Amino acid sequence: MIENNIITGFSKLSKDEKLELLASRLGLSPEAMNSLRSFWHSDAEVQKTLDEFSENTITNYFFPYGVAPNVVINGKVYMVPMVIEESSVIAAASNGAKYWASKGGFHSEVLSTVKIGQVHFIWKGNFEELQSHFPKMRKLLLDRTAAITANMERRGGGVLAMELLDKTDALDHYYQLSVKFDTRDSMGANFINSCLEEYAAGLREYVNESGWFEGEPLQVIMSILSNYTPECTVKTWVECDVKDFGDIDSSMSGEEFARKFEKAVQIATVDVYRAATHNKGIFNGIDAVALATGNDFRAIEACGHAWAARNGKYSSLTEVSIENGRFHYSLTLPIALGTVGGLTSLHPMAKFSLEMLGNPQAPELMQIASAVGLANNFGALRSLTTKGIQIGHMKMHLLNILNTYGADDREKVLAVEYFRDHKVSYNSVAAFLASLRNGQVIN
Amino acid sequence: MIENNIITGFSKLSKDEKLELLASRLGLSPEAMNSLRSFWHSDAEVQKTLDEFSENTITNYFFPYGVAPNVVINGKVYMVPMVIEESSVIAAASNGAKYWASKGGFHSEVLSTVKIGQVHFIWKGNFEELQSHFPKMRKLLLDRTAAITANMERRGGGVLAMELLDKTDALDHYYQLSVKFDTRDSMGANFINSCLEEYAAGLREYVNESGWFEGEPLQVIMSILSNYTPECTVKTWVECDVKDFGDIDSSMSGEEFARKFEKAVQIATVDVYRAATHNKGIFNGIDAVALATGNDFRAIEACGHAWAARNGKYSSLTEVSIENGRFHYSLTLPIALGTVGGLTSLHPMAKFSLEMLGNPQAPELMQIASAVGLANNFGALRSLTTKGIQIGHMKMHLLNILNTYGADDREKVLAVEYFRDHKVSYNSVAAFLASLRNGQVIN
Repeated sequence: MIENNIITGFSKLSKDEKLELLASRLGLSPEAMNSLRSFWHSDAEVQKTLDEFSENTITNYFFPYGVAPNVVINGKVYMVPMVIEESSVIAAASNGAKYWASKGGFHSEVLSTVKIGQVHFIWKGNFEELQSHFPKMRKLLLDRTAAITANMERRGGGVLAMELLDKTDALDHYYQLSVKFDTRDSMGANFINSCLEEYAAGLREYVNESGWFEGEPLQVIMSILSNYTPECTVKTWVECDVKDFGDIDSSMSGEEFARKFEKAVQIATVDVYRAATHNKGIFNGIDAVALATGNDFRAIEACGHAWAARNGKYSSLTEVSIENGRFHYSLTLPIALGTVGGLTSLHPMAKFSLEMLGNPQAPELMQIASAVGLANNFGALRSLTTKGIQIGHMKMHLLNILNTYGADDREKVLAVEYFRDHKVSYNSVAAFLASLRNGQVIN
Repeated sequence: MIENNIITGFSKLSKDEKLELLASRLGLSPEAMNSLRSFWHSDAEVQKTLDEFSENTITNYFFPYGVAPNVVINGKVYMVPMVIEESSVIAAASNGAKYWASKGGFHSEVLSTVKIGQVHFIWKGNFEELQSHFPKMRKLLLDRTAAITANMERRGGGVLAMELLDKTDALDHYYQLSVKFDTRDSMGANFINSCLEEYAAGLREYVNESGWFEGEPLQVIMSILSNYTPECTVKTWVECDVKDFGDIDSSMSGEEFARKFEKAVQIATVDVYRAATHNKGIFNGIDAVALATGNDFRAIEACGHAWAARNGKYSSLTEVSIENGRFHYSLTLPIALGTVGGLTSLHPMAKFSLEMLGNPQAPELMQIASAVGLANNFGALRSLTTKGIQIGHMKMHLLNILNTYGADDREKVLAVEYFRDHKVSYNSVAAFLASLRNGQVIN
């Protein structure tokens, strides 16, 4: 039964053959097939490049590509490309960015750009003996990757440090070769992994084939970069006088707003349920920039959230302080981004995004992404602590809801007008359209 | 200086006007403008829908849309749509899925589907007094959302529970109205937030306007759903006899492979550097399914990683056991997914993805996404613990590298042939192409 449904050799089929097989399995109509093909790029060469990014590709998934203007960072004004499917993220980033543009913008500082790779191994022999050989072994290991690292060294990067770590308190006989890298403007995953596999081979050879060590051979479990990069960190902040918040909301003073905002951040610091959503809003912005520039958002997310839990409790990535009438709000987090290699120059839109940003180096892109993350978070907290998030969010979502109910252009215009001062929900939009279609007048 | 570069009213411009402004700011050539437009969908109606998902949209970002066949879950065979820009993710998922298809496939069980929303508030009065009013207040609050919840109740969902929580041990005067929801097949963010804002208004009204309570008024800080959903959880696993791994790698026995694999998972349990990358590989698969089906991957990531840190230390999401010669490997995590609402029916490709999966309900989609996540993780660990990850990964990445160096079709064919038994790296591919272009023969 299951056996009959297993497909063999799918990856070897041509794209057209894959589509045919899919069509016959799923009983797709010619219209459905045409719809799938309608998402191909009209230039066959461009489409081929896109197809080759991944495997078993049959078409493309389109994400809206938008722009947040007015992102001021360290005195420089950016128009930031954002790729995101969620309504109101780009609006929140744009609003947040424009709000701060008149107050000095975002300040940002890259604290470090070190990445980590590990060879994990099991060794049942004497660790001190291994350690005594380490200076000599390290040199041999580094020599093995000279051909791979030469290029990176020309660009100013390379291997920064290599250590033997005793992890036997965590797991019996478990040790690491821990290596620090500077990969300059590339994300560097392939570079790091290629080096590590050489080190693993060298380590095995040195220990198991030299005859210098007794007992069971050293066993390498695996060699791989870590996506956790606490030494590749950026800090971004905004600041202003509390009284400058005077016009932020008609229902409260600048001082009241600042205190309420502070409370909201404190809550995200102490409550994991709130912290996850608070940080999620930050990544709405960061990931949108990562997607637009061809970066790997899963790596960014894993790193940022693991870091948010570094003190034993998952917590807010931002910190707030109010001192002597001065409001200070900062986001500090590790983000490993690349501006060369990977898709950054291969994907036409990723390439365009980097051009839009003035072809920044990786540290500058870290600043941009984190500033947009902070802009999003500020925008969300501002809404949450004043008029609530639903008014704005549902207004943004109104067009989606209207599309769900098949509204035409005239209906959309009338609906946008009507919902300027009525609450948006699926129910209220359905009721509005029903009345409209029945020729009723709604007030 | 900055002021001169600030753009006002960008969001109000038409799409063409936005593009014009961008072109003049960035000095874009007519070719660059045409390239941007080449990513528009040819059907203006479809493009309009895509534009309306988000704000300030000027074009689309194309992601490769691929298929992992042979994903067997609880005896049912799926072809799973995956949207991902990273090479070798779909290949790893397909390989992992096919490997397990012959061993009973994935087993999966949804443990619960409860979601949480919170009204965070500050109250300096007597909490016991507030509590004594709570039964009456709860009824009033629930009445306020009757119009919103009626629809959800018809679909079998709604509000499951409402509690007052004392959080003053974490923060002075801090309390929560914590509400549990069943949102059926929708992700439910708008529904939950709309309910919560009503509860917040009702809470303020009840406490501050009734005259029953003395002292400072109750202050609502914010009302919002939590993306942390530890009660919306799925468990997915594979199992087989250890001896069935006999043919997995020529260099080791089935028992040796299982023990090495076990060690790799234990390392991801004890070491945060490894845990982040281990879990990142799981989300490679889960997010690819989330993207393909129009779900919000930031919510999924924030939830899953926060959950990975629930015991005070960020750790592996998977667990392994070997008992009596039987290998058992499981992934347990919370994932809140929707199969109705949001983009699921609005985005033509999201809609197609759900059709490809047989229009599952949300719990079934949780099973599918987590099975693909486990398939990816198994594939990654299998490579890491046997031949290493770079051989496969760089082979997959070879076409990207060839594209970087502008290889033509003939060169690609020759390169794929040559790199069957040579190590792929940027350097080696560059050297190969250089030799080819100089008319040299390479062996």
